[in-house]
Amino acid sequence: MTRTERKPDQLRALKISRHYTCHAEGSVLIEFGLTKVLCTASVEESVPSFLRGKGSGWITAEYGMLPRSTHTRSTREAAKGKQSGRTQEIQRLIGRSLRAVTDLSALGERQITLDCDVLQADGGTRCAAITGACVALHDALATLVASGKLATSPLRELVAAVSVGIVAGQPRLDLDYAEDSACDTDMNVVMAASGGLIEVQGTAEGAPFSRTELDALLALATQGINSIIQVQYTALGIRSFTTK
Amino acid sequence: MTRTERKPDQLRALKISRHYTCHAEGSVLIEFGLTKVLCTASVEESVPSFLRGKGSGWITAEYGMLPRSTHTRSTREAAKGKQSGRTQEIQRLIGRSLRAVTDLSALGERQITLDCDVLQADGGTRCAAITGACVALHDALATLVASGKLATSPLRELVAAVSVGIVAGQPRLDLDYAEDSACDTDMNVVMAASGGLIEVQGTAEGAPFSRTELDALLALATQGINSIIQVQYTALGIRSFTTK
Amino acid sequence: MTRTERKPDQLRALKISRHYTCHAEGSVLIEFGLTKVLCTASVEESVPSFLRGKGSGWITAEYGMLPRSTHTRSTREAAKGKQSGRTQEIQRLIGRSLRAVTDLSALGERQITLDCDVLQADGGTRCAAITGACVALHDALATLVASGKLATSPLRELVAAVSVGIVAGQPRLDLDYAEDSACDTDMNVVMAASGGLIEVQGTAEGAPFSRTELDALLALATQGINSIIQVQYTALGIRSFTTK
Amino acid sequence: MTRTERKPDQLRALKISRHYTCHAEGSVLIEFGLTKVLCTASVEESVPSFLRGKGSGWITAEYGMLPRSTHTRSTREAAKGKQSGRTQEIQRLIGRSLRAVTDLSALGERQITLDCDVLQADGGTRCAAITGACVALHDALATLVASGKLATSPLRELVAAVSVGIVAGQPRLDLDYAEDSACDTDMNVVMAASGGLIEVQGTAEGAPFSRTELDALLALATQGINSIIQVQYTALGIRSFTTK
Amino acid sequence: MTRTERKPDQLRALKISRHYTCHAEGSVLIEFGLTKVLCTASVEESVPSFLRGKGSGWITAEYGMLPRSTHTRSTREAAKGKQSGRTQEIQRLIGRSLRAVTDLSALGERQITLDCDVLQADGGTRCAAITGACVALHDALATLVASGKLATSPLRELVAAVSVGIVAGQPRLDLDYAEDSACDTDMNVVMAASGGLIEVQGTAEGAPFSRTELDALLALATQGINSIIQVQYTALGIRSFTTK
Amino acid sequence: MTRTERKPDQLRALKISRHYTCHAEGSVLIEFGLTKVLCTASVEESVPSFLRGKGSGWITAEYGMLPRSTHTRSTREAAKGKQSGRTQEIQRLIGRSLRAVTDLSALGERQITLDCDVLQADGGTRCAAITGACVALHDALATLVASGKLATSPLRELVAAVSVGIVAGQPRLDLDYAEDSACDTDMNVVMAASGGLIEVQGTAEGAPFSRTELDALLALATQGINSIIQVQYTALGIRSFTTK
Repeated sequence: MTRTERKPDQLRALKISRHYTCHAEGSVLIEFGLTKVLCTASVEESVPSFLRGKGSGWITAEYGMLPRSTHTRSTREAAKGKQSGRTQEIQRLIGRSLRAVTDLSALGERQITLDCDVLQADGGTRCAAITGACVALHDALATLVASGKLATSPLRELVAAVSVGIVAGQPRLDLDYAEDSACDTDMNVVMAASGGLIEVQGTAEGAPFSRTELDALLALATQGINSIIQVQYTALGIRSFTTK
Repeated sequence: MTRTERKPDQLRALKISRHYTCHAEGSVLIEFGLTKVLCTASVEESVPSFLRGKGSGWITAEYGMLPRSTHTRSTREAAKGKQSGRTQEIQRLIGRSLRAVTDLSALGERQITLDCDVLQADGGTRCAAITGACVALHDALATLVASGKLATSPLRELVAAVSVGIVAGQPRLDLDYAEDSACDTDMNVVMAASGGLIEVQGTAEGAPFSRTELDALLALATQGINSIIQVQYTALGIRSFTTK
Repeated sequence: MTRTERKPDQLRALKISRHYTCHAEGSVLIEFGLTKVLCTASVEESVPSFLRGKGSGWITAEYGMLPRSTHTRSTREAAKGKQSGRTQEIQRLIGRSLRAVTDLSALGERQITLDCDVLQADGGTRCAAITGACVALHDALATLVASGKLATSPLRELVAAVSVGIVAGQPRLDLDYAEDSACDTDMNVVMAASGGLIEVQGTAEGAPFSRTELDALLALATQGINSIIQVQYTALGIRSFTTK
Repeated sequence: MTRTERKPDQLRALKISRHYTCHAEGSVLIEFGLTKVLCTASVEESVPSFLRGKGSGWITAEYGMLPRSTHTRSTREAAKGKQSGRTQEIQRLIGRSLRAVTDLSALGERQITLDCDVLQADGGTRCAAITGACVALHDALATLVASGKLATSPLRELVAAVSVGIVAGQPRLDLDYAEDSACDTDMNVVMAASGGLIEVQGTAEGAPFSRTELDALLALATQGINSIIQVQYTALGIRSFTTK
Repeated sequence: MTRTERKPDQLRALKISRHYTCHAEGSVLIEFGLTKVLCTASVEESVPSFLRGKGSGWITAEYGMLPRSTHTRSTREAAKGKQSGRTQEIQRLIGRSLRAVTDLSALGERQITLDCDVLQADGGTRCAAITGACVALHDALATLVASGKLATSPLRELVAAVSVGIVAGQPRLDLDYAEDSACDTDMNVVMAASGGLIEVQGTAEGAPFSRTELDALLALATQGINSIIQVQYTALGIRSFTTK
Repeated sequence: MTRTERKPDQLRALKISRHYTCHAEGSVLIEFGLTKVLCTASVEESVPSFLRGKGSGWITAEYGMLPRSTHTRSTREAAKGKQSGRTQEIQRLIGRSLRAVTDLSALGERQITLDCDVLQADGGTRCAAITGACVALHDALATLVASGKLATSPLRELVAAVSVGIVAGQPRLDLDYAEDSACDTDMNVVMAASGGLIEVQGTAEGAPFSRTELDALLALATQGINSIIQVQYTALGIRSFTTK
C-alpha cells in the first residue's frame, strides 16, 4: 500500500471552521482530509458531585459517530443502549487531554462538556476530536471572559493530536482509514503547544515494534503537531498563546 | 408573540444539499431556517427477521439530536443508555411516512435505514427529517437502479412534512422553536406529492381547538407542503416524479 | 371485511365499572366490547423535580398490556427490560389528554399517576384507556375534595377518545382488532365534553387518504365521543359536569 | 394483633374463576380474600434453546404486580427496566412448583408460560399464583388433548400453596398483608394433591424459630392445602384427578 | 451415585482463613471441600435512604461467581449487564440470615456490606457464603468496638448454614456439585448457634418429598451446623459467644 | 513521597502460582507486592460470529475488581448493570496484548477467554493481569497440545507488562497505589520476551512530560520486564520459549 497523493511526513488538508453551529458556547467543525468532526463546548454552572464545594471546575468529553459516518452503517449506540469500549476509551482520552492544558481551579465551579461527533470518518477521528475540541474550548472560555465571569482564560496553552503509524514498513504521518487498517504499528500522540507530551499510545497491530521505530514515529508526530498548532493559531486569529 | 420577519403563511428559508457526506447511498443536509438535519439512507442487503423469506423489503428510520444542537445541552441518549419516548415516537413517524410512498415488495429483500440526525435545532425537526429523508431515499434507490439491482425505483411519489400551529390566536405555517413553545395548538402534517394525506397529528397544548381551527391549519399545511415539494423537485433536478 | 353485527357508526358495548380495585384513589374497569382496561389513579403528595417549588401539580400516565391480553403472547416488557416505542407513545398521549382538561395549578404540588393496564385486548386500547382514566381521575380528585385538601375539583370537563377508520372503503366507528389490522386509514380522536378537540392522530396504513375521508372520520368520531361521554356521566351518576 | 373475623386455622374466602380472559389457552382469576391474581397459561410450539431437539417440553412462569395493586403505588418494573429480586424469586418458585407435577417429556417440544399478574394484593400473592396457575395449566393442557396434539394430559396431579406464620405468638393459616408484616416467622408451603411436599420455605423475620414451631406451621399448612385442593377440584368440576 | 470417601452424615473438610485480604474490615476465605468463597465485610458510615434518620443500621449482601469458578465458564454478570435471578435470590438470603443475628439498632446509622465471591465452586456455595460472612461480620464489628465507635458488638450469636439432600434414596449432609445435580430433594438450612432456625428452604427437584424425609434432613442439618459453628469458634479463638 | 523500602528501579516481590483453581484450563494467581490478580484461561470450541468459518481462533479478555479489593468499597459492576470505561479499556488492552504473541490461525476455530479478577489491589493491576494471563494462556494451550487437538502451541513468545512513572521528579519502576496516585506521569509498557514493544501508554497526570522523561521511563520498563519474564520462565519450569 503505497501513499502517492502526499509524502509520508505530510498531513492531509486540515480545515478548522469556528462558530459552526449557533447554540453552543464553542462550536468547531474540524476536517482532516475526509474526516469531519463537529466539536461543541457547553458551559454548565455546576460541577459533578465529586467536586462540589471544592472550588474547582471540570472538563469532560463525549464522543460519538453518526451511524453512517463510516463505510458501512454501524449500529446507533443510543439504540443499542450502551456505548462501546472504544467510544468510552476515546472520550476519556479527549477529556484527559483538555484537562491537562487547563487550570481547573481558575475555572471555578463550572463544567465544560466537549461533545465530539463524527459526521464523516476516514481515520484519525480521535486526534481530530482533540484538536477541534481545543479550539471549541478556547471559544467557550472566551465567552466566560467576555461576560465578566472570569478575569482571564484558564486555558494554559493549546493542545493538538495526530496519528502516526508504520505502513508497509514506512513510518507515516496522519493515517487515513485505509492506512490505519493496514498498518503494523499505530500510535496516537497528544502534545501541547510548548512541546510537552500529554499522551503517547502506541500499539502493535501485527508484529511487535522496535525502539527505533518508536523514535521515528515520535519524530513524525512532533513535526505534524507543530504544523497543526499553527493552523489552530490561524483559525483563532492569534500568533501565539500565553496566559499570564 | 408576533411574527415580523415573515408572513403567517410563509415558510422559512428552505435548503436541500445532496451528497452531503460521502459514504451513504443517500446523504442530504436539509435546512428549515436555523434547523439543520443530516439525513442519510443506507442500503442493507437483508431484511429484519419478521420479513425474511417473504420477498418484501423494509424501510426504517432512526432519529437523534446532537447533545448541543439545542439551546441548552441535553443528555446524550447513548450515554443515558436509552432513547426517550419522544425520539421513538419521531423515528416511528419517519419510518411510516417513507414506507407509505414506497412499493416495498418492488424493493426486494433489502432494508433501507434512514438516519436523521439534528445538527442544529430551531423547531420542526421531525418535519425537516421526513422531507430530507425522502430525498436521501430517492438517491439511495437511484444507486440500486444504476447498479442494475432494480429495474425502476420503488419510490411511488415524493413526501414532505410541515408543522403548523395557532400562536397568539393566529394560524401560522412552519413554526420555529419560540413559536412552537408558545403555541396553543400544534399540528404536524405529512402529505404526498399527489395531495394525499399520510399523517395528521394535531395536539392541544393549552386549550382544546375547534374544528374551524383544524381546517385553517390543514389549509396552511397543504399550501406549505406544495411549496416544499417544489424545492425537493428542484434539488433533484426533475420537474415531476412518476413511477411507471 | 364486512361489519355485520353492528352499524358502521355504532359503538361496541361500553361498560364502565368504578371502584374496581380497593387500594387506588380512583379505580375503573372500562370495556369497549372485548377490550378491557383497568385504569387506576394514584395520588402522590409530591411532584417531579422539574416542577418542585412552582406551586403546580402534574398528571402522568403509564400503560401496559398483560402478556396474554393479546391473541398470541407478547413478551413482558419488565422482562425485556424496556418499554416499546408504542407503549411510550401511548402513555405520553394519555398523559397529555388528561392534563388538557385539568387545572394543574389548582391541583397544588401533587402528582396523579394514571396506570392503564390492558387485561384483554381487541382494538382501541389507547382510546379505552383515556376514557377510563378520565373517570378514575375524577374519582381520585373527589377524594382530595372529600378530605378537605382541595376546595373544588381541578377537573375542568370530561374527556373521551375513540378510534375511527376506513375499512374496505367504508368509514367506521370504534374499530375492533380485526378491523384495525385491515384498515387503510386509522384515526384516534380525543375530545373534551364541550366539543373541543384535544388530539387528532390520523395515519395512512396503506394508501394516502383524502381530505374528504378525513372529514367523514372526524364526523364519526365526534358523534361517537358524544355517546361515550354520556356513559361516563351515567357511571358517575351526574347529568353534566361544570367546575366553578 | 388479634385475628377476629376468622379462626387461626381458617382460610380466607377462596374463589377460582376459569376462562376469565378470552385469548389464553388457560385463564383463571383466583381470589384469596382481597388478594386477586390473574393467571394465564399460554402454549407455544417450541422450547427454549437449551431443550431444543431433546424431545422434552418446558413450563416457565412470570410474575408481576400492577403498580397500584398495593396500598401505595410501586414503580412499574417495565419503566424501571428490570425485575426486582423478589419478582424473580417468585417466578422461579412458581415455575418449579408446576414443573414438579408435570411429565415434561410427555408434553413434547412445547413450552407453557404461566403469567401471574396481581390485580389486587393483600398478602399471599405467590401462593395464590401457584394455586391459580395450576388450574390454568390444567385447562391449557386440556386444549392440547382436545385438539388431538396430546393423547392424555401430562399433568400428574394438582398442586396448591398457602402461607402460614406465627403472629403474636400464634400459628396462623393464610396470612393477610397486615399479619404478614407483623409476623415473626413466615412460611410458604407448596404441596401436591397426594400429600407430597414440593417446596417448604420458612423464614425468621424477627427471632429464630424452634423445631416445634416449624412442626405446628407444617401441620396448619397441610390442612389448609387439602381444603384448597378441594376448591380446585370443584372449580374444575371433577372429584379427583389421576392420570393414566 | 454412592458416596465413598465420606459418610452420609459427614461434612467435607472445612477451613476458615481470616484476614485473607488486607483492605476490608472483615475478610474470610471459607472452604467446604473444593468450594472456596471469599467473604468480605465493609463498613460504611451511612445507611440506605429508607433508614436515614431512624437511628438503625443495616446489613446487606452481594454474591457473585467468578466466570471460571465453575466446570464450564459462565458469562460474567457485569458484562451481561444484569444479575441472574439465582444471584439475587442468594444475596437476599445471605442478607436476611445475617440481619437475623444482629441487633441493627445497636449498630447505629451504619451499613455493613457482605461481599461473597465464589473463587471455586463445588456445590454449597450459598451455605459457605453465609457461614464465612458471619465470621467476616464478626471481625468488622470488632473493629468498630476496637475503635471506640461501638461499646459492644451488636452480633447476638453466630449463624451457619449447610445443604442437605436425598441422593439415591439416602439423606446426605453437605452435598458436593455432583450430588447436588443428582439429588431428588435439596434443602438449605440456616441456623443460629443457640439452635434456632433462621431459614429452611426445601425443594423437590424430582418427585415430591414426604414429611419423614423432611424430618431426616432437618436432623442431619442440625448436627452438621453444630459442627460448623465449632469451626467458627475455633477460627475466632473463642469458646462461645454471648453478647450482654 | 520518597520510596524507602526499595530502589527506584526495583520491582516489588513478584510471585506466580499456577493451577490456583481447579476447573480452568489455565489458572494463575499473580502477586506484585500486595496486588493479587487471579487469571484463568478458558478454552471454548467455537469462535465469535465475525470469525465463524474463517479457520482462525480468537483470544479475548475480561477484567473485574472484587468490590472490596480496594481501600474503600467500590460498587459491584454486575449490580450497577454495566462495566465502567476503565474496565473496558483494560480488558481491551489485555486481549490485544495476548493476541499479539499468539498465532491465531494456528489456534484453529477456538476461543480462549482470559478472566482477570483482582482479589486485592495496590496499583499495577492491569500489568499484573497481562503478565499472569500470559502464563494461564500458556497452560491452557498446553492442555490442547496434550490432548492432541493441536500439534504445537500457537504461543509465539511470552509477554509481560509493567507500570513506570515519574513520582516526585524521580522515574520509578512498578508503582504501588500510593505512588500511582501521586505521580506526574504514568506509563504502562507491554513487551514481548524478544524485546519487541507491544503497547506503550504514557499519560501526563499533571504537567506534560518531556521526551527525555519518556526515554528514561522506557529504559526502566525494559529492564523491569526482562526480570518479570525470567520469573515467568521459572514458574513454567523452562529456560526459554521458542515455538518451531
